[in-house]
Amino acid sequence: MVQVTFLPGHTKVEVSKGSTIMQAAIAAGVPLESACGGRGTCGKCKVQIDPEKVDPTQDVGKKFLSDAEREVGWVLACRVAVDKDLTVKLSEYKDAHQRKTQLNQLTDVELAPGIQKHFLQLTRPTVEDQTPDWDRLVAALPSQKISFNRSIAAQLPQVLHQANFQVTAVLDGDKILSVEPGDTTLRNYGLAIDIGTTTTVVYLMDLLQGKVLASGAVTNPQRAYGADVISRITHAAQGPEQLQELQELVIGGLNEIIVELCAKSDVSKEEIYQAVVVGNTTMSHLFLGIDPTYLAPAPFIPVFRQEIEVEARELGLGILRTGHVVLLPNVAGYVGADTVGVMVAVKVDQLPGYTLAIDIGTNGEIILAGEKRILTCSTAAGPAFEGAEIKYGMRAADGAIERVTIQDDVECVAIGGTKPIGICGSGLIDAIAQMAESGVIYASGRIVNSQVDLDKLPPSLQQRIRRTTEGSEFVLVWAKETEIGEDIVLTQKDIREMQLAKGAIRAGVSILMKEMGIGLEQLDRVLLAGAFGNYISKDSALGIGLLPDLPLEKITAIGNAAGDGAKMVLLSQVERIKATEFANLAEHLELSTRMDFQEEFIDALSFEHQ
Amino acid sequence: MVQVTFLPGHTKVEVSKGSTIMQAAIAAGVPLESACGGRGTCGKCKVQIDPEKVDPTQDVGKKFLSDAEREVGWVLACRVAVDKDLTVKLSEYKDAHQRKTQLNQLTDVELAPGIQKHFLQLTRPTVEDQTPDWDRLVAALPSQKISFNRSIAAQLPQVLHQANFQVTAVLDGDKILSVEPGDTTLRNYGLAIDIGTTTTVVYLMDLLQGKVLASGAVTNPQRAYGADVISRITHAAQGPEQLQELQELVIGGLNEIIVELCAKSDVSKEEIYQAVVVGNTTMSHLFLGIDPTYLAPAPFIPVFRQEIEVEARELGLGILRTGHVVLLPNVAGYVGADTVGVMVAVKVDQLPGYTLAIDIGTNGEIILAGEKRILTCSTAAGPAFEGAEIKYGMRAADGAIERVTIQDDVECVAIGGTKPIGICGSGLIDAIAQMAESGVIYASGRIVNSQVDLDKLPPSLQQRIRRTTEGSEFVLVWAKETEIGEDIVLTQKDIREMQLAKGAIRAGVSILMKEMGIGLEQLDRVLLAGAFGNYISKDSALGIGLLPDLPLEKITAIGNAAGDGAKMVLLSQVERIKATEFANLAEHLELSTRMDFQEEFIDALSFEHQ
Repeated sequence: MVQVTFLPGHTKVEVSKGSTIMQAAIAAGVPLESACGGRGTCGKCKVQIDPEKVDPTQDVGKKFLSDAEREVGWVLACRVAVDKDLTVKLSEYKDAHQRKTQLNQLTDVELAPGIQKHFLQLTRPTVEDQTPDWDRLVAALPSQKISFNRSIAAQLPQVLHQANFQVTAVLDGDKILSVEPGDTTLRNYGLAIDIGTTTTVVYLMDLLQGKVLASGAVTNPQRAYGADVISRITHAAQGPEQLQELQELVIGGLNEIIVELCAKSDVSKEEIYQAVVVGNTTMSHLFLGIDPTYLAPAPFIPVFRQEIEVEARELGLGILRTGHVVLLPNVAGYVGADTVGVMVAVKVDQLPGYTLAIDIGTNGEIILAGEKRILTCSTAAGPAFEGAEIKYGMRAADGAIERVTIQDDVECVAIGGTKPIGICGSGLIDAIAQMAESGVIYASGRIVNSQVDLDKLPPSLQQRIRRTTEGSEFVLVWAKETEIGEDIVLTQKDIREMQLAKGAIRAGVSILMKEMGIGLEQLDRVLLAGAFGNYISKDSALGIGLLPDLPLEKITAIGNAAGDGAKMVLLSQVERIKATEFANLAEHLELSTRMDFQEEFIDALSFEHQ
Repeated sequence: MVQVTFLPGHTKVEVSKGSTIMQAAIAAGVPLESACGGRGTCGKCKVQIDPEKVDPTQDVGKKFLSDAEREVGWVLACRVAVDKDLTVKLSEYKDAHQRKTQLNQLTDVELAPGIQKHFLQLTRPTVEDQTPDWDRLVAALPSQKISFNRSIAAQLPQVLHQANFQVTAVLDGDKILSVEPGDTTLRNYGLAIDIGTTTTVVYLMDLLQGKVLASGAVTNPQRAYGADVISRITHAAQGPEQLQELQELVIGGLNEIIVELCAKSDVSKEEIYQAVVVGNTTMSHLFLGIDPTYLAPAPFIPVFRQEIEVEARELGLGILRTGHVVLLPNVAGYVGADTVGVMVAVKVDQLPGYTLAIDIGTNGEIILAGEKRILTCSTAAGPAFEGAEIKYGMRAADGAIERVTIQDDVECVAIGGTKPIGICGSGLIDAIAQMAESGVIYASGRIVNSQVDLDKLPPSLQQRIRRTTEGSEFVLVWAKETEIGEDIVLTQKDIREMQLAKGAIRAGVSILMKEMGIGLEQLDRVLLAGAFGNYISKDSALGIGLLPDLPLEKITAIGNAAGDGAKMVLLSQVERIKATEFANLAEHLELSTRMDFQEEFIDALSFEHQ
């Protein structure tokens, strides 16, 4: 792991070696303008680094940078891989930040954290005033309804006497979380945690200043038991030990990041009083150690839906033992706290008109909000977008083809600038969009097979289409140009997988719009949440019909909105209340029970523009 | 340990070998008439056992039993030591029971336990009804304010599916303690626990029938760190580890008894949903693992005073992990939950007139109630009553002199009928009362020293008075008649210790009466709580002026009233509320701040009748 520090703001993030500066910026939650999704074709992600750290043999984006700029270290963030610790100045920090504000409105949050500190100067007890320590403490607090906390009471006398009865009480409403010697009112920290099936991100926040002090991401260690939620559920269903094992894995991963974030920010873990957590419904269950077995089969029943608050020590989360862990509410078995986080982040109740928000991952969660209604559904978008179920599919890591252009021949760009190993979701969308546009596949998704149609293609493309015993396939990269020494192909089956995935999402969108009673022309915006939304080429997404046919400017990538929602709840009790309001307001449509879903789904399979 | 079963009722108790049947009855909470306090002189404690188990060489109370009675196994309970498991029929069960009712009014308690069970027949979820398991459960319960419990939710799906959605929910108000497969509404158990500095007693109770299923006592394992509360506090004050050690000791001791009680009653520990605990303030702190350091020095500040409820798993108490442990409120640093238990047991708010209740142990806690007031104080009665600080003092165990008669010579009776080893509190009170009456000591407490006064004594008594380099002493038992082969004596210092102890209690009583504004003639009753109260000879207690000068019939021993209070709270929420009412109502007088205490104390030292 290497550390990237972004200026101004000194936001720090740990990423694996070889990540691009852009990937680091996304992990850090630092806004970075990008119109091409990291392809190196828009030149908007200009940042400045120490020129001595630039590899002179590498193209850092010379098309968009003057020699003078390059001499003082300007590079494109999407072109530079980070090999050792690096400090990065953001060129368009201000603009980008405002954009983010406008979208996620994070900086609009009025700071009103649930965690409040009170410095108390207590009178010492005497024989005339034998008030117990606990009662003495509570009497000095703004609320008299403070509930007793055994583990804080246990060491209270020592704290009081050591500090000569001058202490700071840490409150979360009527609950007391800590009593600290002296006046510590200026130090107040919390965590926003986004537990992804694949990646877990943690933000250490200063609750008084409302800013991220440091952030870090780690692969969810539960991956050892499978990449998707179903395999995790299957493992947990074996018994309480397996369930506990999965819980301990995710908590263990979080605790490792927390230690690092604390060290680099000079914050002790006992000063982290609250953690706000989002994740899909399965991740939420596993995080709490609650049996998720019956989320897998229909009728997909979660154990709980409401917001949950537990003491950190109950979960073993490495913050103040009596600190509070708040898990945002879920909506349904496959619309989780992360989706509620998105609703909070975009202030779904304040957006004018109609808003469609899509979080594309292993599952596609879709929100359609407007007219004081929030509709949600989830579609088995399928792991195709994450590269699974695809012959040469892989996650968005070094060597994954992320951009594909097809004109006379095929041009592929892999992450990290290396020779390709496979293809990730955004590459897949690009590839299929380009194949459809160039005539390599029919609108039905079938790879062209009549001689007439083949003859219309340039010879170099014709060569790439071939039949195997398992059906047709299209060669994206010839063996000699790959890292793996074999042809990287898209098979007919791969294309079908993607068709099913995008068909499911489009059908979900159609059902929600039908339920809301609106047409395309009434849709004011489409927000793409999640890292995938940042990487995807909007053109290609429109091209394959993954997104409804709208003007590009109505479509916006909003980054890790789920995590932003967690931050906002951490910073404001108002947002916390809203999270539950949104979850309660949400009308979840279970697509599998709808007679019209199959119909919409089949309609949505075609690659024809609709 | 041997087991004694009392009929009718099959109440079982474990006692150490050699305990008398009467001691077993007291430990079991079985009411047994006794007017002489176990001296064998009143003949009221008649019980029937298997005649083959009677040792024919032993006098089982022939003065009070016909030959015919003895043939069928009638014995005096105070005369028979138990060597192996024994079943005992109570002759006067009914009378005795009524007496107990009248005193402790335990059977008056209207059963209204906090723990309630609800059998639920839930509908199975469907795709049309995706209600989460937790919400489904709560919707079927009488209260909709049930708070979420992570550890119950964790395994809820398994329970629901295994039991085909037919389950029993266990509630304590708005809190859910357990969800059990099937209909278990007829099984509902709890514990009443009395944590003494010396001995801990546990009663396993059937909450539906309101009866004790089994009970057991064990020496508080904290004794390894000293016999009195101050030495325990001193140990705990060394640091959190020592504090934890003391907590684990008491919990460990309790858990051992609980396992035994469960085994013998066919109750599983997961069916024990609540434990109500009493103990003095130090024991309460240590039980919860709360630092008691500042209870020791003036101004004697406890950390908490209110009733505390925690989950069993938090303390490691071996009942249902999510079961509730309720510690009754304390009044002050030296008037604890045990004293509040006494208030509950005697229904202090319903007794007409004025009631004085004294719990004599290491400390003497005194309650004076009347006119809707409850006054309390505690006196450093001193360990003299428990045999400590006395040259040949010992606890009330086998070989302890418990009765002393002085006429022409001294006659001593030791517990267990063995040769004496030392003397316990009740023996000490007897001895001093008899010494005062027979002229061995002056009213001032000084052992007679003028020849004139010595000459008035019978020669056998004269021989027993002797001077050593450390002052005068009185030989109670000559070496050859003891088990230890040396003279058992009472020294002048021993007498002074007892004078200080009884003086403190009498002074406490006087101060309370003065504060209440009443004289002796207005006192309607004196209740002696605790095992000591059962053993003490009222005559002697009056004789030395330990008790106010009242007619004998106004003085009553009420046994382990603290434990009875715990039972009542377990059986009735009304009593639980009363416990807190009483604790809040109690006006605690800190004797050390009162100018008049020293004066009353010195007045109370004399052995003259007042």
